[in-house]
This record gives sequence, structure tokens and C-alpha cells, in this order.
Amino acid sequence: MSATSFLKRTGASKLCTRVVSAALSARSKRIVFGRRYYSGESKAIVFESFGKPLEVLKLHKFPLPDLTDSTMLVKFLAAPINPADINQIEGVYPLKPPFITTEYSSSVPVAIGGNEGVVEILQVGKGVSDFKPGDRAIMRHTLFGTWRSHAVAEEKDLTKIPFSGSEITAVQAATASVNPTTAYRMLKEFVDLQPGDWFIQTGANSGVGRAAIQLGNLWGLNSINIVRSRPDIDELKKDLAGLGATKILTEEELADKGFRKVIREWIGDSKLNLGLNCTGGESTTNIARQLSEGGHLVTYGGMARKPVTIPVSLFIFKDIHLHGYWLSRWSDNNPEDKEKIVVEVLNLIKEGKLKDVPVDESVWTESMSDEALLDTFKSGIATYINGAHGRKQLLVQK
Amino acid sequence: MSATSFLKRTGASKLCTRVVSAALSARSKRIVFGRRYYSGESKAIVFESFGKPLEVLKLHKFPLPDLTDSTMLVKFLAAPINPADINQIEGVYPLKPPFITTEYSSSVPVAIGGNEGVVEILQVGKGVSDFKPGDRAIMRHTLFGTWRSHAVAEEKDLTKIPFSGSEITAVQAATASVNPTTAYRMLKEFVDLQPGDWFIQTGANSGVGRAAIQLGNLWGLNSINIVRSRPDIDELKKDLAGLGATKILTEEELADKGFRKVIREWIGDSKLNLGLNCTGGESTTNIARQLSEGGHLVTYGGMARKPVTIPVSLFIFKDIHLHGYWLSRWSDNNPEDKEKIVVEVLNLIKEGKLKDVPVDESVWTESMSDEALLDTFKSGIATYINGAHGRKQLLVQK
Repeated sequence: MSATSFLKRTGASKLCTRVVSAALSARSKRIVFGRRYYSGESKAIVFESFGKPLEVLKLHKFPLPDLTDSTMLVKFLAAPINPADINQIEGVYPLKPPFITTEYSSSVPVAIGGNEGVVEILQVGKGVSDFKPGDRAIMRHTLFGTWRSHAVAEEKDLTKIPFSGSEITAVQAATASVNPTTAYRMLKEFVDLQPGDWFIQTGANSGVGRAAIQLGNLWGLNSINIVRSRPDIDELKKDLAGLGATKILTEEELADKGFRKVIREWIGDSKLNLGLNCTGGESTTNIARQLSEGGHLVTYGGMARKPVTIPVSLFIFKDIHLHGYWLSRWSDNNPEDKEKIVVEVLNLIKEGKLKDVPVDESVWTESMSDEALLDTFKSGIATYINGAHGRKQLLVQK
Repeated sequence: MSATSFLKRTGASKLCTRVVSAALSARSKRIVFGRRYYSGESKAIVFESFGKPLEVLKLHKFPLPDLTDSTMLVKFLAAPINPADINQIEGVYPLKPPFITTEYSSSVPVAIGGNEGVVEILQVGKGVSDFKPGDRAIMRHTLFGTWRSHAVAEEKDLTKIPFSGSEITAVQAATASVNPTTAYRMLKEFVDLQPGDWFIQTGANSGVGRAAIQLGNLWGLNSINIVRSRPDIDELKKDLAGLGATKILTEEELADKGFRKVIREWIGDSKLNLGLNCTGGESTTNIARQLSEGGHLVTYGGMARKPVTIPVSLFIFKDIHLHGYWLSRWSDNNPEDKEKIVVEVLNLIKEGKLKDVPVDESVWTESMSDEALLDTFKSGIATYINGAHGRKQLLVQK
């Protein structure tokens, strides 16, 4: 008697039957890919309900379905912890992940965390034409759930990385699609900046901020970069200057009215027509004050957890314009342009023109216990929540 | 010996000589225009330094220069007290009026208040071709100084009113160029509104607000109108409904989260893509929350004396855009379009399609004492400062 028939005969619930069937099916396809071992199971960081990440995140294991002609088995090599991922878990992000039972073999609906990530293709269905085992790819859309060991994906879910592992590492690829692309688009979309023009930004040492400094520098733009004061401020200023930041100021320096004259002297007869904002609060108001007449202020984050506050006179008499930027909206409307920019960004990384974001890796290995996997991931989350000093937290699977 | 030679011989100062000469010259041209009497002198409301209007405003009398071939003698029939005029006196408006001695025959530099107004042409120089005595005109630019009895103007200073006094009264003409034109442009410039679309506005009973309601109504737009609560709120709601306001809410009703659902029900499948704001503060934040995705919020005033505060999420996830509107900037760049719109607005007034703004008149007559002229004007200012219950304050000369 097969295990499945046994379950049926003993009156196990439909769900339970399906779970065990899937587990058995998975067990039967234990495979060794080159040096890599795959158990037929995915380990994932999930949550059952919205809440504080350290409280609601759990490790969940479930068998993956058999491949069809059009699907592929993929292994996640690296996946970052982005602000949007955290907001998603907290339930304050407008894109809600799907909560799933059957497909994840869970008795209660669970959602897998993470949106950005890089995978290696392990096995492809017969009908898959654009990918082959060994290829690497990034997520084409958000909401895939990237904090996991393995997945079954379709071709439409992935964008192939047209570079080898020695040209672009997994960690580089895992952080290339969101932050540099956001910076790239924000520098292009609102103002037709010309070489010699200036822009100003809060949160300049964020992933997007660092990308904006470097892309701006490549395109001949000058940048005024605002960062929070901190004990190692001189080191940070040196770091950002090394990326090509024209000027770097702390929020306190920016708030000092004396500095406004200094800023005007820096700019001279040039224009400061673009501000990028990922904080909110006072430093956002202060960068708005610096904009040239007719300038544009673009908000793409709210790290200070404060609203954007702008004096009425800046709207009326300085004719400033405010916008928001959300890469997901643009990507969904412009998937082909998104791919082009990602490839352009990866090429710049390969050529050393875009420097790596500083990262902390939470490393998963096949041999780790479930407790160790969860602890490792949560320590990355904790570091993120505590500020991480501008270092991107990544889940890396070796 | 002429009076001037006498002054020269007795060693009077150059300025004093010029003042007395001008006075004598003016005295020599006392004229009677029809039933109207003109003493050759202008009486004006002036200020020597920025400050609180009730403290710094004075009455100043000075002789007008003789007409040249290209100038005209004009009499001010009506001039409103607009918010910009008050800000100008307080020194917080970016356009500063000229402070003048010689031309105004003043020993200290003074500026004449007021920017909007309607004049009657009393006398024209030989080379003036587009105007004749009896014509009426409005100011083409700001900063002319309209709170005065008479002036000498050039053709370039004025836009002729192509309607008779029985078609358009002086009071109607005096308030047509700023408020309705501002409303007109704001309804056109940022969003391509279609019949059936909605807009929402704070300060709906202001001059601009009332014009926006009526123009919107003429163009098939629905409006949600926010006003401050007050004892006679039912009367005000009835008043605005009579102008064509689709919905009217107090700021408190707007702040009530329960009402947001009601607003969404009103709008249904239509769009609410435009907000007009002349307050700042909480009600501005609340109208921003109501906007459809991709909507635009335009700030043209700050009556609440509070900044515009917008949650970061509205920028990022609702893609709202903020702008300012300052009619003076647009007028300077588009003088011909401005004239066309003013004529269109005057035509709508003539046809009864744009109702008169409720006004309080401070009436000046030739026979009033200087003290009475100043007191009359200051009582208009005081009424303005105390809120004026949505009634426009006007200086009217009879």
C-alpha cells in the first residue's frame, strides 16, 4: 500500500493528504547538482500575520512541486533586506504578499518575506527555452518571496543576468535591481539635468543615495549630500567623497542658516533643480529651501518616520514641485526599460564604475539546523532595525 | 519774481524747491471734468517701512506731474485689499514696492499700497492712441500702487475694460483680474479635467474659491468645498450651493475619518485629481488624502499660517504631486493670455454667470478730510484683518 493510499484509508484530512503526498513526491526527487545538494524542500522565512518582524517571522519548510514543462527549479543565492520588505511585514506597505496554504503545505496561510534576490537555475522543464541550468537571474516583479532556499519559478518571473559569476557576484546582482535603478530613474524623470547642474539629497549614505552620488558623478552632476551626524562622521564623509560626492553636510550643518549662504556660493550661477528625499522631517524641509526657483523635490522614502513639511511660500514664490517615486509602479509600467537599466547598472558594476554597497551577510548553509537558520536571519533583521550604519543586510546561501 | 525763483534765491533745498514747484504746477492745472473735480493732487495710502498695516499706513498727498504726450491722468474708481497687499506691507511678500521720494514729493521714501484696481481715464497726452477720456481700465502689472485717488499712467500700465459702466461696474472690474483669473488658471494648468471630474478645495468661500466653484460649475466639474466652521455655517453652505458648489464640508467634517468613505461614495468611479489649497495646516493634509492616485495639489495661499504637511506614503504610494500657483509669475510670462482671460471673466460677469464677490466698500469722496480718508481706509483694513467673513474689502472713490 502506498503511503498516500494509507492516508486516504485512515481518513486523514484532504490538506494533510496533499501535504504528505507533496513531501513524498519531494523526497523521491533528491538530486545532486554538481557539488550542490538539494533535498526537494524549500526553507523559507515566513509570517502568518502582520507585526514586528522579530516577533512574527518564522522558519517554514515545505516540499516543492514537481517541475512541469514550463517551470524551473531555482536556488536563491542572495536576497537583501530592504525597507519595503520590513514595511510589508508590518502591514504598512500597500503591496500585500499572498498568504498561501496549499502550495506552501501549511495548515495556516503564510507569506514568504523578501522581494529582491538573485537565483541560480538548477533544473528546467522541457519547454523552457530562455534559461538553462547554471544561469543566474533576478526577480522580474515584487512579491515573489525571496527569503528562501529554493523555489519553482516560471520564465516570466525572472530576468536573466547576462554576466558570469566572476564578472558580477551574486551579492552585487542581488542589490542591483532596486536601489541603483531607483536612483537612475529619479535623476532622469523629473528634471532634464545637464552636466554641471547640482542635486541635493537626504539619506545620502543609503543604497539609493550612494548610487545617486555615483551615477550623478558619471553624468557630470554635482551633488550635495546630507547625512545624519554620527561618531564616525569623518570616515563617512571620506567614504562618500570617494564615491564622487561633491559636498557632504550633516543634517545639523544643513539646518544652520549660515550654511545656506555657503551652499549658494557652491552653486554659483548653476542650478539646483532636484532634491531627493528618503527621510521626511526637518532635513527634507531644509533641502527644499535650497532648491532653485522651479525646482523639484522627489520623496522615495521616510526613514525619519516624519511627514514632509513645506512652507507655503516655497510653493507660491519659489514655484517648487513635489513628487513621489516608487520603483514598483514604474517597473510594472515599463518592464522592458527596467531590464535595460538593470543591465546598464550591472555593466557599470562590472566596469568598477559603480562601487559595491557595503553589506553584512547572514549566511545559510545546507547543514545548518532550523533554529540556526532562523537565528541567522533574525540577526540580520535586528542589525537592519538598529540602523546598520548604512550597511545593506543580505541573506546569502552557500 | 516767480515762486520758484524766490525759493532758489532764498537757498531752499533742491528737494524742497522741486516739491513746491510741483505743487505750484499742480495748482495751476485745477480742472473740472464734467461733474468731477480734480485738484491736481493725489491722495494715497503709503508706508515708509514694513510693519503691521494699521501701524505703518499713512495718508500722503502729493502733486501729480504735468502730462506728457504719452501719459494719462487717471482717477481710481475702486481698489481691493488683497492678501498679497497686506503681505507686501508686512515685508513678507517677495515683490517689494518701490520706495520713492521725488516723484511722490516726499522727504522720506514712501511706497503706495495696493496692486489691483480700476481707473477712469480723465485726460490723455497728445500721443496716446488706445485710450480716451471716459475709458476705464485695470492695472496690467502689480506694484503700481492702487490705493490712491489719482495717478499719471502710461498706456503700458493699463488694460482697457471693453465694457460700459452699465455692463460691468467699477467694483466688479476691480476684483476681476486677480481672483477669478487665479481660479481659472489653476483649474486648467495642472490637470486636464473633463466634465464629470471632481476637484476639492480649502478656503472655498474666498474670492478665488468662489470663482473656482462657479467656473468649475460652468465647465461641468464637481467640487468638494471645505470651509471653516462658524456660527452661520448653514447660511454659508446655502450661499456656496447657490454658486454651484456640489458638496460643502467644514474642516471638522473633513477631518472625521467617517466622512472619507462618504467622499469616496460621492466620487464613485470618477476622478478627484485636483486639490486647491489656500490654507495650509491640517485641512490641506486632509484634502491631499482624498485625492485619487496621481492627483495634484496646488497651493496658492496660506491663510492658516501653517505649512503644508504631507505623509511620505501619499507621495510614494499614491503618487500625488504638489505645486504652487502665483498669478503674478504667470501673468508676467503670459500677458496676452492674461488679458484674454480677464475679458472672458468680465464677459461671464456681464452675463450673470459669475456672481459678484460680496464686498464692503470704504468710500472716499473729494470733500472728506485727510483724517476721515485715512480712518475710512483703516477700517477696511481692520475688517480684513478680523476675517471679514469672506467679504472683499474695497476702497471706492465717488
